[in-house]
Amino acid sequence: MTTAPARIVGLRCRACGRGAPLGPTHVCELCFGPLEVAYDYTEVAPLATRAAIEAGPTSMWRYRMLLPYEAEEAPVSLGEGLTPLVHAERLGEQLGLRRLYLKNDSQNPTNSFKDRVVSVAASWARQQGFQVLACASTGNLANAVAAYAARSGLRGLVVIPDDLEPGKVAPTAVFDPVMVRVRGTYDDVNRLCSELADRMPWGFCNINLRPFYSEGSKTLTFETCEQLGWRMPDEIVIPVASGCQFVKHAKALDELRQLELVEPGRPPRLTGAQARGCAPVATAFERGETHIVPVREPRTVARSIAIGNPSDGSDVVRLARASGGVVTAVEEEEILEGIELLARTEGIFTETAGGVTVAVLARLARQGRWSRDATVVAYITGHGLKTVGALEGRTRVPEPIPARLRAVLAADPGGLLEAGQPAARRAAG
Amino acid sequence: MTTAPARIVGLRCRACGRGAPLGPTHVCELCFGPLEVAYDYTEVAPLATRAAIEAGPTSMWRYRMLLPYEAEEAPVSLGEGLTPLVHAERLGEQLGLRRLYLKNDSQNPTNSFKDRVVSVAASWARQQGFQVLACASTGNLANAVAAYAARSGLRGLVVIPDDLEPGKVAPTAVFDPVMVRVRGTYDDVNRLCSELADRMPWGFCNINLRPFYSEGSKTLTFETCEQLGWRMPDEIVIPVASGCQFVKHAKALDELRQLELVEPGRPPRLTGAQARGCAPVATAFERGETHIVPVREPRTVARSIAIGNPSDGSDVVRLARASGGVVTAVEEEEILEGIELLARTEGIFTETAGGVTVAVLARLARQGRWSRDATVVAYITGHGLKTVGALEGRTRVPEPIPARLRAVLAADPGGLLEAGQPAARRAAG
Repeated sequence: MTTAPARIVGLRCRACGRGAPLGPTHVCELCFGPLEVAYDYTEVAPLATRAAIEAGPTSMWRYRMLLPYEAEEAPVSLGEGLTPLVHAERLGEQLGLRRLYLKNDSQNPTNSFKDRVVSVAASWARQQGFQVLACASTGNLANAVAAYAARSGLRGLVVIPDDLEPGKVAPTAVFDPVMVRVRGTYDDVNRLCSELADRMPWGFCNINLRPFYSEGSKTLTFETCEQLGWRMPDEIVIPVASGCQFVKHAKALDELRQLELVEPGRPPRLTGAQARGCAPVATAFERGETHIVPVREPRTVARSIAIGNPSDGSDVVRLARASGGVVTAVEEEEILEGIELLARTEGIFTETAGGVTVAVLARLARQGRWSRDATVVAYITGHGLKTVGALEGRTRVPEPIPARLRAVLAADPGGLLEAGQPAARRAAG
Repeated sequence: MTTAPARIVGLRCRACGRGAPLGPTHVCELCFGPLEVAYDYTEVAPLATRAAIEAGPTSMWRYRMLLPYEAEEAPVSLGEGLTPLVHAERLGEQLGLRRLYLKNDSQNPTNSFKDRVVSVAASWARQQGFQVLACASTGNLANAVAAYAARSGLRGLVVIPDDLEPGKVAPTAVFDPVMVRVRGTYDDVNRLCSELADRMPWGFCNINLRPFYSEGSKTLTFETCEQLGWRMPDEIVIPVASGCQFVKHAKALDELRQLELVEPGRPPRLTGAQARGCAPVATAFERGETHIVPVREPRTVARSIAIGNPSDGSDVVRLARASGGVVTAVEEEEILEGIELLARTEGIFTETAGGVTVAVLARLARQGRWSRDATVVAYITGHGLKTVGALEGRTRVPEPIPARLRAVLAADPGGLLEAGQPAARRAAG
């Protein structure tokens, strides 16, 4: 293995603080807590200036000094990250928020935030000599792993539950990974992959490569603050699956503050969003506990976040509480309405997980959680094209008409005949 | 209407040079040629410096000084443009090109380059007081118009052929535009919309707003040269539908050279890509003519570029010839192989139109068109998720197996059991 530079100290257990050498491992030998990459921030600081970051690549790799990748060789990249932070004026108007922003991470190479984490994992794995890039996945991760394996020349291996939506299988198969379909839930798949990672010399992004992989999530929050003019928002609404990215957003905020990259101020409240049909974290939060009771049979259209036994669930509850945030779950109908509300007000089409985020945002706004001037950011983490089926029967496709002017005028579609006069012309006439 | 600033002179006919006032019109009254926006480049020049552009927004609007939008008000934007320019080393290796680049415009808000043109059209239309933003479309444009209408608060109206792929209808319907399905081909739809644009006070992006709309295409080429370090490539491969964007890329190169934004040098050859099943422009090119014989019944999976009577076809032939480029058409099987080749080598999943582009690129490379060191750029203009159906039956989805380690080992998926040992560990062992 190459020598790690001084800015990367090694791995460290998030629970007990015990150190471990850098390597493909993710569980503390002492307490079984999660291992994280530890940095020497005195080494990072000279590299992490606003000017240096702004002059960097127009991708998440402008934050390379805060990511665990050190080789001379360029990282495995498809231009992930630096996705738009959209000021949502029309949605904000409906929700009574003047400063509502959407971080649209569906605009990534494979259309979900998973490209961020996989780009880091693939870069590290290739540099370490791994030949197989693998994952357990509910779909989005498989899509990203298959794409980045192709891009990097590693062999891709994706292990997926057999009932995954076809819409998520075909766009993964096109990258020609080895695909293993397993009878069972995501949690079954995940257990199986843990065994495989122990036995085989394969790099599983979300298992033995997890400490590296998960660091990629931080860039979403780095960029959000940069795009707000190096200011922290008042609250961030984040979808919760394993809880991994939620935890990393908290770490990202700590780093931004420690490195004095953001203006001083109260760190944002971190709020989690789940679907009621698989809401182990929201349930723990509501009960005032941190212990997570696993959900054995997730039942929700929001498949990409339906993890019944979330590895970082307890930490999510703690971080939400400590920051002043909440973890809220919404019903199935709210999820679909959330997708439609976002599409109709802002022109952004998100997958079911994004519907969960928007539904939580809408519910909390209507409950009066925020003042009109609060800066609230919602993370939209995946694209609607991946879960089109969820909307089946909800959109009306009109009957065809003949290709003649009088047929259109007779139909008066949408009552448009009365509308549509340009204001300027009306004034002139 | 607001007073246009000095940098925008008005409209001007591309064929006869006659001027016209700025307004929602696209055909020269004198010669029926296409109207374009004309600039006073002495006014543009002080604004169009490399430093100013690089300090601008991380979207195509960093080129605002070269776009026909002048209001104080922010443009209607979802963060379109500044998409990745990917150095395609693995695909390049297969094709004998060390400097092959892919401009991945599928990473736009609605996953095609149409977001660029619609963002300009919507901005101009809203500022002029239009209340309806409309289009004739083969799918991608309808998707973009519906999204940007939602974003801007204008009413969306999309007119589409009745046989459009369902995969393209649902993601448009979610934005809740008025949708008119018409019996006939795209050319029938287009004729109908021309009549509607004459009669109704609606802004049709690709008809009466066309001079403004089409300017957005230029940003694809502006960005490509910027991302190459303000250098022009040797050749650009561009999919050809109406030919509109092809013509605008030539204009963009003229502007970059005139404003001395790019290093001096020979301007790139411009090469067009069509599907043989609807190849009126390639056919004219091959015959050594400029006259376009319309194709009455397009027959290709590449629906989004299947325009039988392309309005700018003759200009494409002229510009390709003058620049030293070609216009080439490929067969259906090549298109699908092009999609797969791109996915498996670079991790980018493109729609059928992108398959056409890659297939033309691959064919020309194999014919020895380029030296190993030529800088070749291919424009990948839309996302594979929009035409997943085209690959039906080509990807093998494996039978499910039990969630047990020994089941995986017994299956030895992809023959991976022999592979995958990290090089570092092998060396150590």
